[in-house]
Amino acid sequence: MSQLIEELKGKLDAPAMITGADLQQRPGDMSGNLCRAEAIVRPKTTAEVAEILKLCNIHNHPVVTMGGLTGLAGGCATRPGDIGLSMERMTGIEEVDVKNHTMTVQAGVPLQSVQEAAAEVGLMFPVDLGARGSATIGGNIATNAGGNRVLRFGMTRQLVLGIEAVLADGTVIKSLGKVLKDNSGYDLKQLFIGSEGTLGVVTRAVLRLIPEPRSQNTALVAVPDFESVIALLHRAKYCLGSNLSGFELMWDSFFQLVMAHRDRHRPPFADQYPFYVLIETLGSDIDTDAALFENALEDFYAAGLIADAVVAKSNTERDALWAIREDVEALISLYPMFLFDISLALDNMQAYLADINDSLKRRWPESQCVVFGHLGDGNLHLVVAVGDGEPDTRTAVEEIVYGTLRDYSGVVSAEHGIGLEKKDYLSVTRSDAEIAMMKCLKRAMDPKNLLNPGKIFAL
Amino acid sequence: MSQLIEELKGKLDAPAMITGADLQQRPGDMSGNLCRAEAIVRPKTTAEVAEILKLCNIHNHPVVTMGGLTGLAGGCATRPGDIGLSMERMTGIEEVDVKNHTMTVQAGVPLQSVQEAAAEVGLMFPVDLGARGSATIGGNIATNAGGNRVLRFGMTRQLVLGIEAVLADGTVIKSLGKVLKDNSGYDLKQLFIGSEGTLGVVTRAVLRLIPEPRSQNTALVAVPDFESVIALLHRAKYCLGSNLSGFELMWDSFFQLVMAHRDRHRPPFADQYPFYVLIETLGSDIDTDAALFENALEDFYAAGLIADAVVAKSNTERDALWAIREDVEALISLYPMFLFDISLALDNMQAYLADINDSLKRRWPESQCVVFGHLGDGNLHLVVAVGDGEPDTRTAVEEIVYGTLRDYSGVVSAEHGIGLEKKDYLSVTRSDAEIAMMKCLKRAMDPKNLLNPGKIFAL
Ligand SMILES: Cc1cc2nc3c(=O)[nH]c(=O)nc-3n(C[C@H](O)[C@H](O)[C@H](O)COP(=O)(O)OP(=O)(O)OC[C@H]3O[C@@H](n4cnc5c(N)ncnc54)[C@H](O)[C@@H]3O)c2cc1C
Ligand SMILES: Cc1cc2nc3c(=O)[nH]c(=O)nc-3n(C[C@H](O)[C@H](O)[C@H](O)COP(=O)(O)OP(=O)(O)OC[C@H]3O[C@@H](n4cnc5c(N)ncnc54)[C@H](O)[C@@H]3O)c2cc1C
Repeated sequence: MSQLIEELKGKLDAPAMITGADLQQRPGDMSGNLCRAEAIVRPKTTAEVAEILKLCNIHNHPVVTMGGLTGLAGGCATRPGDIGLSMERMTGIEEVDVKNHTMTVQAGVPLQSVQEAAAEVGLMFPVDLGARGSATIGGNIATNAGGNRVLRFGMTRQLVLGIEAVLADGTVIKSLGKVLKDNSGYDLKQLFIGSEGTLGVVTRAVLRLIPEPRSQNTALVAVPDFESVIALLHRAKYCLGSNLSGFELMWDSFFQLVMAHRDRHRPPFADQYPFYVLIETLGSDIDTDAALFENALEDFYAAGLIADAVVAKSNTERDALWAIREDVEALISLYPMFLFDISLALDNMQAYLADINDSLKRRWPESQCVVFGHLGDGNLHLVVAVGDGEPDTRTAVEEIVYGTLRDYSGVVSAEHGIGLEKKDYLSVTRSDAEIAMMKCLKRAMDPKNLLNPGKIFAL
Repeated sequence: MSQLIEELKGKLDAPAMITGADLQQRPGDMSGNLCRAEAIVRPKTTAEVAEILKLCNIHNHPVVTMGGLTGLAGGCATRPGDIGLSMERMTGIEEVDVKNHTMTVQAGVPLQSVQEAAAEVGLMFPVDLGARGSATIGGNIATNAGGNRVLRFGMTRQLVLGIEAVLADGTVIKSLGKVLKDNSGYDLKQLFIGSEGTLGVVTRAVLRLIPEPRSQNTALVAVPDFESVIALLHRAKYCLGSNLSGFELMWDSFFQLVMAHRDRHRPPFADQYPFYVLIETLGSDIDTDAALFENALEDFYAAGLIADAVVAKSNTERDALWAIREDVEALISLYPMFLFDISLALDNMQAYLADINDSLKRRWPESQCVVFGHLGDGNLHLVVAVGDGEPDTRTAVEEIVYGTLRDYSGVVSAEHGIGLEKKDYLSVTRSDAEIAMMKCLKRAMDPKNLLNPGKIFAL
């Protein structure tokens, strides 16, 4: 090890290496994993990343790539002796190409910096999520991040045109094309997207930009029952077409938790309802889009799908509505709790939630399961609180949540990835043959198992 | 070989096997490659595909998968002794899920059947291309087909939720999820999409459907120069937003060839212009979308970007406008000719075309280069005619077209794939490291090189 460290020091500038006592200053990740690495290296260029991986490969030394550390699956967790490769000094925005609507960046750039650089020239990078200030583009790519506008623009996978990545042996794969269409052989970037740092270190990316939408319409609506929620989603897609960009569902359990904070929120409705949906459109014409939105709401009302509605009449009002949906801090009152991020078919959701609620209540009569999520994408976030947060309890809760999910052909990770935390449950969603194929790819691309070893699956 | 044929016969029903004289009845592909296979097998189920591949694997026998044979890169070409695996008896539409907006099909189903089955329930599968009657979903997936609506809905890759495929050794990879979001480990389906039958045989797929748009607005506009074409594209994206679904460019050279057929077309404009663009929107509201479209055209006109415009006032008029863009038969007058399907950055197009025209004219003063394409996607189709169609001439033309493309960082295949016909030019777009990574993946997944060997690259 010390020899590897010496060799790394020989190749990199002084600020690149963090070792010894300085490591104690390093932040842990969102799941509370502290930094246990033996050293953190902080390259500034792709060539340096390649040098680092070459040396680690020679020394058979494992490497954990680190972006903004906001991942929710423990993907950045380090074991004693690991080398952490942090992208924090690779934050350059190399080009904003206004003609071709692309941006070329280093992978360590925070999402928010990208959003701001695009907005400066009247363009938009549509990926958006709560952790935008810290999460990096490399992390977004490595986790195929979703977020608030997937319904309209897709996940990160759909918004990346080109990727440069370094393989375990230091080979640089430069696929930084700017075009939308490229069927020249295998689309290699797909392998780096969503593979959580196990197949390569993403060093640069070409992002797809779109013109900044000119209109934005937002409403919070109250819905009488789950059947109506589904019908409303279909009707909204039909009436609002391509403009529909958000369809965020909150169960009343979630809504009441948030509304308990009267200092932060004003109740939008006089009455209480079982479901609340935040509907948003992004469009290109202020007048016609507002009319379209109004007409749609009238249509929903006439069809009995909504019981009440509040339409944002200013950006302040819009922000207030989103603040309800995004107030994850309100969940702290449930602490200790366990967070889940699942997908399942719309027509299975009701039965699935009833099943797990039954099982949870049987075991922990006082348990609470609070639900909200990106319903337009079939993606629910569950927060389960049963009174304690011990590892055994977590396992027991996971067995209920994921075990039941298996019966409904659900997905254990919709957007956060598998990392360390869900690897025991990968088989809920993936067959033995699929997992074997993943391992086959991993062995082909990283034969010594040096990149983020033990994440997603054990080899 | 005969032993393999006997074993296959033992596993399959009689109509499944085509051998001997019956092979002469088999159609060739679109590139004029005749069927040279020793036998064609026509399975009916995934289990049969798995049996076939298992036996071929035991006997080390190469297999060429065949869909509708409309591919334009020679991907279905067979060599004497090959086994052809035709999907023509796997055409089942297994489920149209109106609640989740998905359709599950066998891979041999023609694209048009899928489109019709979706339309029957008020939904749409957005992939569309001229060969819709014969091209299969499996072929669309294997070539990551593009087509007429990529600008709005993406390529086939974006519209496939799940895939079942059989690997070279007969292993069935069943990833038939219906949800939009699934980050549970590597997204294996991405490997089968666009790999032209070299990594697995696609047997089933879950397709993503959208509600059928309610409004459609179409115009043909005349544009004074190329700078204005680019400005018009940006302005159209800005003014029409998510509704913009088509932006098809024709150079006057293409337009005049088509218009020479007065029996098929009525001239839409009194004057002649350097460029013509077919602009189309798909939306959800007849009145507001029509207003949006009218306003946009006025805006383009006021900005001096268009010199004239014809707006379709009925479906008949719309069809007449599309008939101009789709009249590839008119190109026959150029015969013999060579077809190219390239992508490049918008701001490189003019210079690139000027360069190759210079080179072509220097060598063949009478040569013609006719251009049209999906400009909104950066994708151009070039038709080059120099007077003869001999292999040496083809090579000389390819060297000009692709050689020059290299200088402009262009892409040798935007949507048709590499197959056999472009494999010598893969390195124009892909680096040695990228091609090495492709081969590494191929060796990992098909170690005996039995699936469509020699397509895309030589191993
Ligand atoms: C408040 C909050 C809200 C969130 N909302 C959403 C949401 O709506 N949707 C969503 O999808 N996620 C969400 N997340 C999760 C998280 O923000 C995303 O997964 C994000 O993309 C992670 O980026 P990061 O740079 O922090 O990655 P990290 O946490 O640093 O890393 C995540 C994984 O990616 C790998 N990695 C990071 N950078 C690279 C690289 N350059 N090359 C290769 N591998 C790399 C790491 O090894 C690790 O496995 C949220 C998180 C928080 C805290
Ligand atoms: C008039 C016309 C217009 C066209 N327009 C377009 C267009 O706009 N955009 C576009 O992208 N293409 C276009 N094409 C090309 C072609 O139609 C597409 O590539 C189509 O997707 C091929 O489908 P197919 O079933 O005919 O495939 P085939 O020609 O049978 O096969 C193509 C390749 O896919 C492989 N393959 C086929 N089925 C499977 C399977 N089930 N599993 C694994 N591999 C398989 C084959 O081995 C071969 O390599 C056009 C072609 C024509 C003739």
